[in-house]
Amino acid sequence: MANTEGSKLWGGRFVGDTDPIMEKFNASIAYDQRMWDADIRGSKAYVKALEKAKLVSTEEMEQILNGMDQIHGEWSKGAFVIKAGDEDIHTANERRLKELIGAPAGKLHTGRSRNDQVVTDMRLWLRDAITTLTNDTLQLISTMVERAAAEIEVLFPGYTHMQRAQPIRWSHWILSHAVALRRDVERLLEIKKRVNVLPLGSGAIAGTPFDIDRELLQKELAFDGISLNSMDATGQRDFPWCSCCIFRVPLISSSVYPCSTGSSLMPQKKNADSLELIRSKAGRVFGRCAGFMMTLKGLPSTYNKDLQEDKEAMFDCYDTVQAVLQVTTGVMSTLKINQSVMEAALSPDMLATDLAYFLVRKGVPFREAHGISGKAVFTAESKNIALNQLTAEDLSAVSPLFGSDVSSVWDYRSSVEQYSAPGGTAKTSITAQVEHLRTWLKKQAQ
Amino acid sequence: MANTEGSKLWGGRFVGDTDPIMEKFNASIAYDQRMWDADIRGSKAYVKALEKAKLVSTEEMEQILNGMDQIHGEWSKGAFVIKAGDEDIHTANERRLKELIGAPAGKLHTGRSRNDQVVTDMRLWLRDAITTLTNDTLQLISTMVERAAAEIEVLFPGYTHMQRAQPIRWSHWILSHAVALRRDVERLLEIKKRVNVLPLGSGAIAGTPFDIDRELLQKELAFDGISLNSMDATGQRDFPWCSCCIFRVPLISSSVYPCSTGSSLMPQKKNADSLELIRSKAGRVFGRCAGFMMTLKGLPSTYNKDLQEDKEAMFDCYDTVQAVLQVTTGVMSTLKINQSVMEAALSPDMLATDLAYFLVRKGVPFREAHGISGKAVFTAESKNIALNQLTAEDLSAVSPLFGSDVSSVWDYRSSVEQYSAPGGTAKTSITAQVEHLRTWLKKQAQ
Amino acid sequence: MANTEGSKLWGGRFVGDTDPIMEKFNASIAYDQRMWDADIRGSKAYVKALEKAKLVSTEEMEQILNGMDQIHGEWSKGAFVIKAGDEDIHTANERRLKELIGAPAGKLHTGRSRNDQVVTDMRLWLRDAITTLTNDTLQLISTMVERAAAEIEVLFPGYTHMQRAQPIRWSHWILSHAVALRRDVERLLEIKKRVNVLPLGSGAIAGTPFDIDRELLQKELAFDGISLNSMDATGQRDFPWCSCCIFRVPLISSSVYPCSTGSSLMPQKKNADSLELIRSKAGRVFGRCAGFMMTLKGLPSTYNKDLQEDKEAMFDCYDTVQAVLQVTTGVMSTLKINQSVMEAALSPDMLATDLAYFLVRKGVPFREAHGISGKAVFTAESKNIALNQLTAEDLSAVSPLFGSDVSSVWDYRSSVEQYSAPGGTAKTSITAQVEHLRTWLKKQAQ
Amino acid sequence: MANTEGSKLWGGRFVGDTDPIMEKFNASIAYDQRMWDADIRGSKAYVKALEKAKLVSTEEMEQILNGMDQIHGEWSKGAFVIKAGDEDIHTANERRLKELIGAPAGKLHTGRSRNDQVVTDMRLWLRDAITTLTNDTLQLISTMVERAAAEIEVLFPGYTHMQRAQPIRWSHWILSHAVALRRDVERLLEIKKRVNVLPLGSGAIAGTPFDIDRELLQKELAFDGISLNSMDATGQRDFPWCSCCIFRVPLISSSVYPCSTGSSLMPQKKNADSLELIRSKAGRVFGRCAGFMMTLKGLPSTYNKDLQEDKEAMFDCYDTVQAVLQVTTGVMSTLKINQSVMEAALSPDMLATDLAYFLVRKGVPFREAHGISGKAVFTAESKNIALNQLTAEDLSAVSPLFGSDVSSVWDYRSSVEQYSAPGGTAKTSITAQVEHLRTWLKKQAQ
Repeated sequence: MANTEGSKLWGGRFVGDTDPIMEKFNASIAYDQRMWDADIRGSKAYVKALEKAKLVSTEEMEQILNGMDQIHGEWSKGAFVIKAGDEDIHTANERRLKELIGAPAGKLHTGRSRNDQVVTDMRLWLRDAITTLTNDTLQLISTMVERAAAEIEVLFPGYTHMQRAQPIRWSHWILSHAVALRRDVERLLEIKKRVNVLPLGSGAIAGTPFDIDRELLQKELAFDGISLNSMDATGQRDFPWCSCCIFRVPLISSSVYPCSTGSSLMPQKKNADSLELIRSKAGRVFGRCAGFMMTLKGLPSTYNKDLQEDKEAMFDCYDTVQAVLQVTTGVMSTLKINQSVMEAALSPDMLATDLAYFLVRKGVPFREAHGISGKAVFTAESKNIALNQLTAEDLSAVSPLFGSDVSSVWDYRSSVEQYSAPGGTAKTSITAQVEHLRTWLKKQAQ
Repeated sequence: MANTEGSKLWGGRFVGDTDPIMEKFNASIAYDQRMWDADIRGSKAYVKALEKAKLVSTEEMEQILNGMDQIHGEWSKGAFVIKAGDEDIHTANERRLKELIGAPAGKLHTGRSRNDQVVTDMRLWLRDAITTLTNDTLQLISTMVERAAAEIEVLFPGYTHMQRAQPIRWSHWILSHAVALRRDVERLLEIKKRVNVLPLGSGAIAGTPFDIDRELLQKELAFDGISLNSMDATGQRDFPWCSCCIFRVPLISSSVYPCSTGSSLMPQKKNADSLELIRSKAGRVFGRCAGFMMTLKGLPSTYNKDLQEDKEAMFDCYDTVQAVLQVTTGVMSTLKINQSVMEAALSPDMLATDLAYFLVRKGVPFREAHGISGKAVFTAESKNIALNQLTAEDLSAVSPLFGSDVSSVWDYRSSVEQYSAPGGTAKTSITAQVEHLRTWLKKQAQ
Repeated sequence: MANTEGSKLWGGRFVGDTDPIMEKFNASIAYDQRMWDADIRGSKAYVKALEKAKLVSTEEMEQILNGMDQIHGEWSKGAFVIKAGDEDIHTANERRLKELIGAPAGKLHTGRSRNDQVVTDMRLWLRDAITTLTNDTLQLISTMVERAAAEIEVLFPGYTHMQRAQPIRWSHWILSHAVALRRDVERLLEIKKRVNVLPLGSGAIAGTPFDIDRELLQKELAFDGISLNSMDATGQRDFPWCSCCIFRVPLISSSVYPCSTGSSLMPQKKNADSLELIRSKAGRVFGRCAGFMMTLKGLPSTYNKDLQEDKEAMFDCYDTVQAVLQVTTGVMSTLKINQSVMEAALSPDMLATDLAYFLVRKGVPFREAHGISGKAVFTAESKNIALNQLTAEDLSAVSPLFGSDVSSVWDYRSSVEQYSAPGGTAKTSITAQVEHLRTWLKKQAQ
Repeated sequence: MANTEGSKLWGGRFVGDTDPIMEKFNASIAYDQRMWDADIRGSKAYVKALEKAKLVSTEEMEQILNGMDQIHGEWSKGAFVIKAGDEDIHTANERRLKELIGAPAGKLHTGRSRNDQVVTDMRLWLRDAITTLTNDTLQLISTMVERAAAEIEVLFPGYTHMQRAQPIRWSHWILSHAVALRRDVERLLEIKKRVNVLPLGSGAIAGTPFDIDRELLQKELAFDGISLNSMDATGQRDFPWCSCCIFRVPLISSSVYPCSTGSSLMPQKKNADSLELIRSKAGRVFGRCAGFMMTLKGLPSTYNKDLQEDKEAMFDCYDTVQAVLQVTTGVMSTLKINQSVMEAALSPDMLATDLAYFLVRKGVPFREAHGISGKAVFTAESKNIALNQLTAEDLSAVSPLFGSDVSSVWDYRSSVEQYSAPGGTAKTSITAQVEHLRTWLKKQAQ
């Protein structure tokens, strides 16, 4: 019953291992070559462990190290030539090594599997990528903090859905994003801790049967720890997708810019495109993460070819988030604001809560004060005048507690200065936030 | 307060409209050039409408048409040179037109907006892409149907989670995927209907203020209809993501192959990689769709720069699904099966349901028969023998209705032949399914 | 080695089939009881097919039919009592039947499997649900169309990201959502076509071994067709998730309301909450769909217990979308607009494109006209005056073609009237859109 | 133009704030009552800060505290009666307080907003939920570790897609999941750190204008820190969705069980359902997380009503993950394995890599040794015999280095003992993993 002439029987185009469609479908060299440096570093460390285990001679080790350096030079100069049959970066580098040094190249893969090799390369690459993203995020936070410090005098309306909008400092709004980004830095560092663990020496699944000194490997490659279980080390891919999750955070933070800012902030309007593009990237990064999680779902444990999807997702998330961080930093650096337009957007009805608080301070229970303030708002609306244009009679009709001292309420700068508790919008509170973040940034730089 | 020297004050790198990072972030030419042909077709149709509206002279129209043909030739030959400033395919083509024909090029965009231009290009491109995917899916279905017809005699175990596994025809399994793919073809055609609608003539948002004959445009570009509302036409992106949704379907169908097949089907094991890669792509396509939906979420209506994310997602889904369809067709064409191994995987306990049906046919209520059959299974397990090795005494101890005629139950081929109702695994039923699909395929080819 | 005292050896709490945690984890009766009516309808049809196949006597059929009617009455009155052991709606109804009529109840499940029973119930339920959603969507469209007709005179600013905002009719904006919803209706009807297919008679996997007349079942249950392949019929769940996809569409359409409207439209502000809640539901429905697709990913074909996740997702999507449609209809019915505020939001710079078109009509190529108009905008900005306050001298300095006739440009109503091509914002074009939709709505009602 | 009689004009059903559909759509009491205890704790702490700020008298504070204790008692006993108008848990508790103590209840909300109140409740609730999940995960890890220790002698086949399957210890497989779960515990603790931060005192957006001692609140509620910025504190929802992300991890880990185990491990088959249900929940939790991220996407910063979607997602993720952890612990405690069946699944071809290593140890470069081993496999396949049935002649024909000592290769127990490097499958290595985890578990329990 076996079909020896499939294509003829069932009419499909032939697709075998040597079919060009299949070959292209299978190969990852087009994108995983990006890890050429990590792959070379991994192999150089590994050959030292092989030498210690007497699986290669000292001379062979030197040949391999020199060959790898030569390959490194070729990649650096853009002179490395990918050949047919180089299905991934690992085979490409080893093929080239053999061309350069001959027989000893055949000993490099002893006790190693592509399973532990690829995951070692990825962890080395991702460790550096996380460092870059961390630094870019710190740069953005720093830009925000300094801008918040410099423009602390600017007020503008703060909105919530409930229209209990209040006057706030522009710096307060900036810092609300800076503190969110600080959490993202924390997350990046937590993830880095888990990424920075050596899988090399795990073989295909069962471990390595040779006397490979994994501590030597760890030191050579500057990993923080050694993977505890070889099946877990080669088959788990939580490390890139958890990283992807974190990549998403700055995006989502960033995504709120355009809505929050709006035309009062951007008379020049030229930055709108960049802000819209930043916002759009939240979707892209989410999609890459969600897609790779879907790929993982339902896989049997240990390595499956499906995992090959991990790298394009990881690279694209990194590139996207890095671009977003840089462009956002640029926007935060160069955005011109128009203080007079921003402050003109404040209106007395935003002080309705303050009017209630005026009564609270005179002993009226808040719920009652809130009701009285609402009546004042209603009166003003009925008369089609601003809240602060109500006469003394109007106000005392609403509550006898409104005396002439109520006029103190109608000052936006006094209003914001009330919010001096930690986290609030008063100048002292904003300054404290700025100082807190400056101190934290200094600590990160160490 | 306005910051005129932002970068110095806040320490960020400068990012303005002319900053290289920003320019790269903004430009779409790297990927949207793929629509060069659609863009030229759209412009050629549009200039005819301009001529009819007397917004260009006949001579100018001819110049533009000739210029466009020349640009078409350049793209076809790979000779088109993208220049700095060509931020997308639309500006690139118009810039080149101006170089070629001079002043009249400046009239081409009259009454048109990039908003309706880009969406016209996408719809033209996607219409063709859907046709290709439809044909590839039909080719896969056809391959499956012919294979099912050719190997109708092969039996193997059908599984459900509940271990009431029954012997089924291998062709039954193949056809279960073919009928799922048939629904995908239906969906593709439904989507194509909505994609194939002309948006050109919608301008930026309000429509076109000139006497542009949209029916002429429709005919020139072979659209099935004309968009009904210009705001909807330029700002909606349900058409690509709904298409993406459909793209997903064959993938998910395909994703079940490796699990369902398993080693009994693939003694040569060489195809495992391709099947694992096919399975992995379900995640990729899902991620692209989900990501683009996320990008759309919360956008104000009409065009926003965020929508620029649509094209990479659309292209990647198309490329991935097309590759999956071709590789799956290849696998279905060339996979060698081993009938004897497959049939050896059948075992008498899969006939436990038939044993119950034996009693049902003698008048025992099903629930009771089911219980009796369970007792027989238990007896066999206790004796550590196969179900069909129970003696007449064993069976009559369980139920006196088991006579010598029970031996007829233990034949796998008789078993499958019971399932002759429409949709079942009997030979006549499978043949009917094959014929039904062959007829349907013929109709599609018309 | 077998562990007979697991809990003691390894310290975990005991969890077996009779453990309360496991029982709760396994049972679906808490939510699938919602399909009680569909389950009864399916069983009543099935017993008729059993009688025709002589697997039950006419008398037994009558007993079962009467019993089912009685159970129907109990559910209707809220008097049905779920008992321990009723793990799902199917076992609950059959258990009750047995209590009511005794032995014949044991024959009802002959040749049927829970696999084809559950999917029959779901398809019956979903068919009705789609009808309801379709009608609710039509009601919303109708409300929109009539509102658009009634308020056709109201103008307000149309925005795109590119600030080439133009004056448009408020009705134009309303109708842009109505036509999007019309596509959703089309999708619902396409999906219904695929949902409305009979799976009953597919058994567990291989089909039915008895002489069950599937055409009789189809007619009894008013299905449009019969499933073609029993493995596909019992194991595929594309029908609910594809339905979920469509459920999402109105949500995403709806999600743009709050952003698009804004305070000029909603002086009363009381509707903000409902609009924000509507917007939030897009996420909920997306999540349910994405989650169920994730559950499906990687499953072997045919029935797996994992599929039990389908129902809660389906019910929640339906409930959410229905509520959204009703609330949106309510909002569209009762939202009060303030024409004077809306029209006061128009400003002369929105006519910059018209200024360019003025020149185009005098023969200036569009690209050149666009540049000239830009210069006029710049001049006005430099002088800090509105575009229409530029003097004749200012304008003729920019282009000699600007004569006194340019004053005709500064009229918003004239501006919108230019857009009279199909789909545009001119009164005739809007009226045509209204009429088109009214006709379509009438056709749907038939 | 304003529509004063909307429903009549446009035909929709009336939906206003008092419409039952709208009310149900708006209210969250049906699910957020689950936080009743957190809400009461938060209010009790808050009133103490009010008293310190002299905004309530000591007597009023006592009345409020006593009232709150009474309400606590009602909820505990299930005696709390929700009334019409109780739209959420916060209004319900305050309404009840007023009934119980009258006027002073109106002072409780002074300077507090529902914005900081709800997020305080959520953080209190989630902090406890994370503790529970952490403990449940530790219990599962402990069960796995002890089982791995007890059954260390059992071997079975380890698979990778590449069929270089090798014999491994059953304990090795168990521990690969235990170490993955350990990372989940780390993540839970990292998230808890960010959850356990006090937002109370942030008001609606701008902070609190009164002298509320936030450090007192922190101590009363046992938070680790105080939120740094009031806009961030009230509008950010990264804390629940990041928690959701972590909730997903055990699910995905768990999802691999059924595939990895299979029938050789589960002769009793009764556990299949629970394993399939566990697997299905990965989709559910992913969907809830993805859905809530979608809800967040595109929201303006600070509080929007959309955020109300957070709670159902959070509760459902928690319930699902908790059930999965408990059921998985149950399965790991009670699953019976059949050592003889498991070891019978080993076959000599799994030792092909060992055959290559045999040559490597004699100095053959690995790539060459791998090729020679492949030839031996091919020879065995050609002769249709097992790899270890090749004669001395057969083997020496492949390579002269194969002497009689090659027979040592064909022992599964010797094979696994080679993998004694850290992470490997040798007994010493597995024992080291067990000890490492036991030590870590002890540290967690402190």
